[in-house]
Amino acid sequence: MKLKIAVLPGDGIGPEITQQSVKVLKAVADRFDHLFQFEDALVGAAAIDLLDNPLPEATLELCKKSDAVLFGAIGHPKYDNNPDAKVRPEQGLLQLRKGLGLFANIRPVKAYDKLIEQSPLKADRIAGADMVIYRELTGGIYFGDKFTAEDGQSATDVCTYSVEEISRVAHLAFKAAEKRSKKLTLVDKANVLETSRLWRKTVTAIGKEYPEVELDFLFVDNAAMQMILNPTQFDVILTENMFGDILSDEASVIGGSIGLLASASVGNENAMFEPIHGSYPQATGKGIANPVASILSAAMLLEHFGLIEEAEAVKKAVELSIKLNVCTIDINKDNHYTTEKVGDFLEGLIS
Amino acid sequence: MKLKIAVLPGDGIGPEITQQSVKVLKAVADRFDHLFQFEDALVGAAAIDLLDNPLPEATLELCKKSDAVLFGAIGHPKYDNNPDAKVRPEQGLLQLRKGLGLFANIRPVKAYDKLIEQSPLKADRIAGADMVIYRELTGGIYFGDKFTAEDGQSATDVCTYSVEEISRVAHLAFKAAEKRSKKLTLVDKANVLETSRLWRKTVTAIGKEYPEVELDFLFVDNAAMQMILNPTQFDVILTENMFGDILSDEASVIGGSIGLLASASVGNENAMFEPIHGSYPQATGKGIANPVASILSAAMLLEHFGLIEEAEAVKKAVELSIKLNVCTIDINKDNHYTTEKVGDFLEGLIS
Ligand SMILES: CC(C)[C@H](C(=O)O)[C@@H](O)C(=O)O
Ligand SMILES: CC(C)[C@H](C(=O)O)[C@@H](O)C(=O)O
Repeated sequence: MKLKIAVLPGDGIGPEITQQSVKVLKAVADRFDHLFQFEDALVGAAAIDLLDNPLPEATLELCKKSDAVLFGAIGHPKYDNNPDAKVRPEQGLLQLRKGLGLFANIRPVKAYDKLIEQSPLKADRIAGADMVIYRELTGGIYFGDKFTAEDGQSATDVCTYSVEEISRVAHLAFKAAEKRSKKLTLVDKANVLETSRLWRKTVTAIGKEYPEVELDFLFVDNAAMQMILNPTQFDVILTENMFGDILSDEASVIGGSIGLLASASVGNENAMFEPIHGSYPQATGKGIANPVASILSAAMLLEHFGLIEEAEAVKKAVELSIKLNVCTIDINKDNHYTTEKVGDFLEGLIS
Repeated sequence: MKLKIAVLPGDGIGPEITQQSVKVLKAVADRFDHLFQFEDALVGAAAIDLLDNPLPEATLELCKKSDAVLFGAIGHPKYDNNPDAKVRPEQGLLQLRKGLGLFANIRPVKAYDKLIEQSPLKADRIAGADMVIYRELTGGIYFGDKFTAEDGQSATDVCTYSVEEISRVAHLAFKAAEKRSKKLTLVDKANVLETSRLWRKTVTAIGKEYPEVELDFLFVDNAAMQMILNPTQFDVILTENMFGDILSDEASVIGGSIGLLASASVGNENAMFEPIHGSYPQATGKGIANPVASILSAAMLLEHFGLIEEAEAVKKAVELSIKLNVCTIDINKDNHYTTEKVGDFLEGLIS
């Protein structure tokens, strides 16, 4: 198979981890006789610094004409604590999601046996946890109007959802549930929000088309609690943009390290793969960042194109590396490997 | 001291737990020579059923002329899964918060030594955790315009915050931090939301008036993760309405049972005290609901009026009951006491 892959390393630890995934994908291409072409482009703070634009035109164009995007991370502290900053790195990511029509963000969360001891949660609570979160990614309060009153005395963000926006991600989530344990939990705040009531109504109607899937509902506050109290109750979680942002970061504690969690963002025409962790500026350049989330995102890329055996090879390699403790410091406290060494090891296993 | 207390038992387990708090408050009044007058009123589904109104005029009036409100719980499943329901029990609670101007919801979260084993979190992560969440309670997306388009194809919720709304709760939070460990964490999503940027700007400016308090910032997704990874890092958390709803329910896992968490909602003229748990319909009438969250809310009521010794007596009694395992089934699995028996025991200790 021939694939054009746009590589957007971004900020902070983005470049160093993405480099490892590219290495791993190259090893996959070699072994399984594929042709993967990689092209780099600027995004985020890195792009602001050079071009004053978090998502340069050329980057969006490259992504559109590529088969897939491999994304690193975005964000830099110099923008976070400056409420007056007009251009923000994060806008690059948000514009990219919107520009590529990536309406569904898919985040699998699993408790690795070997890592159960790492989790802040007790082993008996998380053993067997295995869920996937479908987060709507191009709607809601992220993309509604936002403005500050002229006198600076108030600010507003608008959250809107259409039936169409809800439906397309809901269908993906139901289809995933059909192939998994056939349970879908819609997380919303229907006792307070009008948008949530539209979600509940729309998803309930769509559920009729998937009679095998058991549909239930949870208010987001309760879901945030249940995620920790009893994570094994979940199979597929479906939720809107902001709630999905919060819940999927929270869910990362189940896996033992946020450095392991991958995600795919898909639309009708494009797909992007990125770790769920951020740019982790304090770790930049120190060789301590865990490349596994990015590498597992590359595995999701392979799966997306039906390269199942290839994806399995990557996942197996990762599992073995964890078993052998060939891990960065977030997992292997005593005798840790660098970002690059972990990448080399995985590359070696796959080659 | 003479206090007029409006009692709003509400729905589900609300009545049975509130009854225990009233009992305990009566014991306090007897022992410390106070005059507490209690008057009941309808709210929530109970009020809809009888008067078609989740917050009858008479209830709001009673609350306004009382010194404090003791609130049970609200919500009934028959309304949750009906997206077309025009009147909802929760509206009663929201209108009450707004009508009484209760702009700050204060939720202390603490790991009880005796209960550390109950928590889904490992003991070493939560030992010593002791924080208080200041949640803004009468603004944001809860109270903005909300509407469905005429064709039913989209819905909108508007989130607005003014500098004034942010400031008044921020001052309370900074004052609390001054008396505690002098650390305040503002939780927001300033990399995406305009309202969050106003929060960051306003709170940063106010922080100058509290030079002893260390102020830091956390994005809500990261906060949801940090709450579990490292809860001892928090002292006072300040946040907007929706984020506060999610984070405080999540934080309840630290204490080992949501049945222990109390809250105070305060404004310039009124104050209301309620457990953070909901109406827990499945448990209604079974005598298994934990009355401690409501009783500790009553202790917050006492504190609010400067009755420190009295509040201590209640808290001491609760601690002893936990030590002796005189607890409902959420805590004492093997040999549990009923809601009423726990109430009787605490009443007895105080008398
Ligand atoms: C960087 C930020 C804008 C982004 C988001 O909130 O979506 C991130 O937290 C994520 O989850 O991908
Ligand atoms: C019942 C509901 C409207 C309420 C809220 O969301 O504020 C509850 O969850 C709470 O936290 O008090």
